[in-house]
Amino acid sequence: MPSTELLVELREFVRERDWGQFHSPENLAKSISIEAAELLECFQWGGDADRSRVIGELADVLTYCYLMAERLGIDADEAVANKLLVTRGKYPVDTARGTSTKYDEL
Amino acid sequence: MPSTELLVELREFVRERDWGQFHSPENLAKSISIEAAELLECFQWGGDADRSRVIGELADVLTYCYLMAERLGIDADEAVANKLLVTRGKYPVDTARGTSTKYDEL
Amino acid sequence: MPSTELLVELREFVRERDWGQFHSPENLAKSISIEAAELLECFQWGGDADRSRVIGELADVLTYCYLMAERLGIDADEAVANKLLVTRGKYPVDTARGTSTKYDEL
Amino acid sequence: MPSTELLVELREFVRERDWGQFHSPENLAKSISIEAAELLECFQWGGDADRSRVIGELADVLTYCYLMAERLGIDADEAVANKLLVTRGKYPVDTARGTSTKYDEL
Repeated sequence: MPSTELLVELREFVRERDWGQFHSPENLAKSISIEAAELLECFQWGGDADRSRVIGELADVLTYCYLMAERLGIDADEAVANKLLVTRGKYPVDTARGTSTKYDEL
Repeated sequence: MPSTELLVELREFVRERDWGQFHSPENLAKSISIEAAELLECFQWGGDADRSRVIGELADVLTYCYLMAERLGIDADEAVANKLLVTRGKYPVDTARGTSTKYDEL
Repeated sequence: MPSTELLVELREFVRERDWGQFHSPENLAKSISIEAAELLECFQWGGDADRSRVIGELADVLTYCYLMAERLGIDADEAVANKLLVTRGKYPVDTARGTSTKYDEL
Repeated sequence: MPSTELLVELREFVRERDWGQFHSPENLAKSISIEAAELLECFQWGGDADRSRVIGELADVLTYCYLMAERLGIDADEAVANKLLVTRGKYPVDTARGTSTKYDEL
């Protein structure tokens, strides 16, 4: 999750602009997909991408993710850690090592 | 950015499975888009979504974002804070307050 | 655009299930993104993908695109042909040949 | 599938620019996701979108879908019709009528 300082900054940024009214979970989900595609666009024609553009687009995805965690009232780190437990169960080290095969085909 | 503890966990999770070989920035960008769409799917037919499913999908997006920050060798919080400065410039409080209009049409 | 026969089939499929009520342009736009990501998932870890899965996912994207053209009351072929004219203007053969550079950087 | 005339135009457009070299199935899948997100962006903050912008973005998604069908050597209409058969099986009229519930929860 973002540092408390960054969270305060993000909240202030939104509050000043009165943008909370637009930040329904649904709109934030759309926004995350839109920004994710802008990140993907850096790699549209291959793996070689402009580093600073990549960092900027990744920051946009993260920003909307943090705003969504805020809106849901959850701790982002805790959500990631909990999901990691589930994923560990789906991909045991023994069968998953060195392969990118999806769990339901392992 | 994630706590140091969570970062260590994520790194260990990847290392144990020898999955770093798949985590090129390009593949991670694709993965972020794929997971973002699974989050969006919670809202495919409207704003009413299953809360625990939403949290789980948001966690997946964040996980790949953190892995990408790792791969790029950047501090996620710093990237978000830097981008926030840029966005503040594009959306001055005076003109942006209360509107969802894009900056190039403000 | 799809053949008249296929269009009739698509309409009948939706009508029988009374699904037109869910097919707002916004919901269809979300659906297109969601299906596009399932197509992308075939290539998540590289260029080698299962052909029949790719074809099935491409069909899903096309299905929602056709439903959206229907909902908008437009002829899909005409829309594509019109956009092609615009794109020809942005990417003149002389400057665009053999490069994947975006028009605003050409 | 597009009319033969449109297909010929699309092929000519790509050939003139020597862009076939960039159109691997993987790159086209990324492109479809990227354009789908631009379509989604029309609806980022709600259902009210600019009609001509929506049509233009839908055309971009369709264009890349047709290029992918070309690259795969398949007939787009046939793929859609085949998938419709599968979907009919997953969503029988009796249980699916009037509900947007996913087949695995019906």
